[in-house]
Amino acid sequence: MSLPSAAELTQFIDHLCDGAAAVTLPLFRSKLDVSNKLTDDFDPVTEADRRAESIIRDLLEKQFPDHGIIGEEYGAVRSEARYQWIIDPIDGTRAFISGLPVWGTLVGLYENGKPIAGAMDQPFTRERYLAIEGKTHLRVDGGQPMQLNTGSVTELSQAILMTTSPHLLTTPAETAYFDVERQVKLFRYGCDCYAYCLLAAGQVDLVIESGLNIYDIAALIPIIEGAGGMVTSWSGGEASKGGSILAAANAGIHQQAMELLNKRDA
Amino acid sequence: MSLPSAAELTQFIDHLCDGAAAVTLPLFRSKLDVSNKLTDDFDPVTEADRRAESIIRDLLEKQFPDHGIIGEEYGAVRSEARYQWIIDPIDGTRAFISGLPVWGTLVGLYENGKPIAGAMDQPFTRERYLAIEGKTHLRVDGGQPMQLNTGSVTELSQAILMTTSPHLLTTPAETAYFDVERQVKLFRYGCDCYAYCLLAAGQVDLVIESGLNIYDIAALIPIIEGAGGMVTSWSGGEASKGGSILAAANAGIHQQAMELLNKRDA
Repeated sequence: MSLPSAAELTQFIDHLCDGAAAVTLPLFRSKLDVSNKLTDDFDPVTEADRRAESIIRDLLEKQFPDHGIIGEEYGAVRSEARYQWIIDPIDGTRAFISGLPVWGTLVGLYENGKPIAGAMDQPFTRERYLAIEGKTHLRVDGGQPMQLNTGSVTELSQAILMTTSPHLLTTPAETAYFDVERQVKLFRYGCDCYAYCLLAAGQVDLVIESGLNIYDIAALIPIIEGAGGMVTSWSGGEASKGGSILAAANAGIHQQAMELLNKRDA
Repeated sequence: MSLPSAAELTQFIDHLCDGAAAVTLPLFRSKLDVSNKLTDDFDPVTEADRRAESIIRDLLEKQFPDHGIIGEEYGAVRSEARYQWIIDPIDGTRAFISGLPVWGTLVGLYENGKPIAGAMDQPFTRERYLAIEGKTHLRVDGGQPMQLNTGSVTELSQAILMTTSPHLLTTPAETAYFDVERQVKLFRYGCDCYAYCLLAAGQVDLVIESGLNIYDIAALIPIIEGAGGMVTSWSGGEASKGGSILAAANAGIHQQAMELLNKRDA
């Protein structure tokens, strides 16, 4: 089955985001039962997470029964399909349970392993970031789409850097992150998917993370690239499977950060 | 001059917040000229910051010409007055310039040095936290006020902790913060005033910071206390002048955190 038109695909992705928001938003800032997915590390999974993924999967199964789906909560189906939908119902679960509106619902679409569309929806702030056909737009509160462009800062000393948490960067290779942190104008922690969207919006110049799963980054790649940014692994390879991720507003800042991230290995 | 009724005071504080939002919101996520207030440290002051404080001060001067004002940008007037308005037009300037909606406009009111009312306004998320006559309410998008209550977690191992940045805690005494961080269930960085409001809303159990100015905390004290929380210095003294701040959802969690924060001095 081929894809519908861009307009129809946009409408369908909107439908997925609306469906997820209908269950996540009422549960945001309510007293949730947080259960631990792993016993030896803190990885909260909320009721909202599971319900939102179920809703998205049901809509996908109805609309594109021969497409594959990879989801954080319920795994993969039809892994050999040409089109793969890659979903993280709540990226930034820790933000969600803390009441911080910097989590998001992520929906990405790959064709033969290549990211071709992506959405990040933050229903509390009413922001929806959507990338399709190589362009990224933001709609706030269902308003007019604003086309996004990354920033033009090309010197690390002028750059704003974000990462989810420095505590996630612990191996000798990962601590190369701090070589970048020391060079930038400003760094901020704790934003998950929201950081990449702020990069697309030209507010942030660099996002550096490690240990990401495919569903943490799939939807964000088209959002970054559609705004003019670059996203690769720390060594400059493909970002599309997750792992170590370096997202930059432009090629100049990407190059400078990549050099620092790989210096310790040389 | 005495104060008007609670309803009139609420309306006036709303007016102050609306006035500030009218200049901050259009500048949020626009490309701002960020100037440095200090040469040897990064402390951005935006146009929005200055304009918002001017608007608030003008409204205060008209309404309460004999009240004192302490503001982050333009200093103090009438320091001997019984009533003091204490304002930070944009608390969380780093969040503001990064495009993160966790900054806020803070307006506090002291009578004879004692906090009696406070507001935190976040115009992008449309949240307004207001404490008056010993109760804290949140209105979202101008809707009905919801009375807030802090959380009931009394064990550090179950608590969520926030601080602005661990890099601000560097002296031997300040590093006692990490003794608390190691005990809690979850910690988050980078929220400034927003963290204290999430504590009032029952989402966060502890906020620990150091080196605060009076205008960083004045408005937040009534917000925390009006929701049932406790806020003191790390050693249990007055929070009303700033300095080291320990805010907790309840007395039990406050006591446990305070013991750890003061252990190293013993």
